[in-house]
Amino acid sequence: MTSISLLGCGLMGSPMSSRLLQHGYSLTVWNRTRSKADALRQQGAQVADTPAEAVAQADIVITMLEHGGVVEDVLFNPALPGAATKLKPGALVIDMSSILPEQAQDHGRRLAAQGVAYLDAPVSGGTVGAEAGTLAIMAGGQEADFERARAVLDVLGRPVHVGPTGSGQLTKLANQMIVGITIGAVAEALLLAQRGGADPAKVRQALRGGFAESRILEVHGQRMVDEDFAKRGSLAIQLKDLRNALHTADGLGFDAPITQHLTDLYAQAADHGFADLDQSGLYRELQRRQSR
Amino acid sequence: MTSISLLGCGLMGSPMSSRLLQHGYSLTVWNRTRSKADALRQQGAQVADTPAEAVAQADIVITMLEHGGVVEDVLFNPALPGAATKLKPGALVIDMSSILPEQAQDHGRRLAAQGVAYLDAPVSGGTVGAEAGTLAIMAGGQEADFERARAVLDVLGRPVHVGPTGSGQLTKLANQMIVGITIGAVAEALLLAQRGGADPAKVRQALRGGFAESRILEVHGQRMVDEDFAKRGSLAIQLKDLRNALHTADGLGFDAPITQHLTDLYAQAADHGFADLDQSGLYRELQRRQSR
Repeated sequence: MTSISLLGCGLMGSPMSSRLLQHGYSLTVWNRTRSKADALRQQGAQVADTPAEAVAQADIVITMLEHGGVVEDVLFNPALPGAATKLKPGALVIDMSSILPEQAQDHGRRLAAQGVAYLDAPVSGGTVGAEAGTLAIMAGGQEADFERARAVLDVLGRPVHVGPTGSGQLTKLANQMIVGITIGAVAEALLLAQRGGADPAKVRQALRGGFAESRILEVHGQRMVDEDFAKRGSLAIQLKDLRNALHTADGLGFDAPITQHLTDLYAQAADHGFADLDQSGLYRELQRRQSR
Repeated sequence: MTSISLLGCGLMGSPMSSRLLQHGYSLTVWNRTRSKADALRQQGAQVADTPAEAVAQADIVITMLEHGGVVEDVLFNPALPGAATKLKPGALVIDMSSILPEQAQDHGRRLAAQGVAYLDAPVSGGTVGAEAGTLAIMAGGQEADFERARAVLDVLGRPVHVGPTGSGQLTKLANQMIVGITIGAVAEALLLAQRGGADPAKVRQALRGGFAESRILEVHGQRMVDEDFAKRGSLAIQLKDLRNALHTADGLGFDAPITQHLTDLYAQAADHGFADLDQSGLYRELQRRQSR
């Protein structure tokens, strides 16, 4: 039986660990704040003191961490000690965190140098998707490594192999671009309709099921109709994601005018005090512009 | 039984007429090119020589015409002769064409002056929706008139009353804004992913069902993956719709930065020879920018 180690038992990593345990995998977990790892002990997980200890026996190592800097630390920092110091040759690291494509490529190269395989496989779908095992999983790396990981990834969601190492992270950025821009489209359209005297709740209802239909119109459009911008997603993180997309585009010599324009709008929203709202709070920035 | 007249038996008006006849309504039709009206005769429609003749006995008059200028002509041009010269007092005109909100308000006022009720009720869903009776119908006008029209509109699709006269057209513009902007989002995201080495078909597949999911990703995203921009929708008409949205926003003192930005991009696409492509052909303009 495949032995799995999961590093990072936060909001996403904990329900993912539970699913792996429910599906009979032998699982060792590590988390910086140990109490979150300990909570998985009664479900059958082993709890390790360090990343290195956690991965020593693992065939597959899953990382689900805050950002690229933390992944770098947890894999490669010798003082922690990081996982790379103890990874078995032939092990497979699946990084499901959202980090920059260039970081993923760097991690992949460094692990390959010690005979360890690597997939970048970030997700979309949030904690609901993690609990239900319905995450969209965007995997970059070698086809054979993807096939090796597939049974495990199938427990967590709907994996698609999109290209070579880094492609998973690139696809996650594409996801965040579409999400961020579509939120702007829905916000601007609902605000205009309201300005002209239409009822935004009825407008949203009328648009559902036509060509304007989207998950954003369904979920974030409802938040706009309710003017309820309590943080589920985060406008500050949406802005960071768009900046990461622009940084990546820049490195590829790619001109992304729409992403640039929306990045400017989210930045203005943050400047005007809306950073801690839900990402649908871009509505507040577009609303603010009407009263100047 | 409600007697209906339908003016404009084109790609949309013809299947709508068929549905009304199938549901047992007494229907008189008129079309500028008479052969299209005559084709409905064998399904039980009466065919009139002029708009005025078509509406003389009608309780409800539906117009489904090319644009606001044609609607103006068909309703009010005394030389045609237009429908308004013969409308029964107490009749209800439902304009399902896509025209400017300000034109709809003007038509509503002029008809009210002769004791005729009016709804603006443009649609989304195309000929497929017209045939299946699944059109999204965005209706503006008085509540009582909407209730009076509901049984007829239910035969044609999913009507929602969104606000006072003009609100239906405003909602249609909101629809076109979301469609036009979302096409830009999907195009830019797929192009970036491809530039970075990912397979755009796999990227689209990976994004489906997550927060980036939309009808545009499903339908127009597939056209982009196939690089098949044969005209179903039209980039030139998408550009016209966005300009109409900006014109309307301007009249309301509404600042629409995202719509403005996308209008500029579609205009550049048209300038570079992509006007006759499908509206998803904005992809070609964004692609072109990468090779400068």
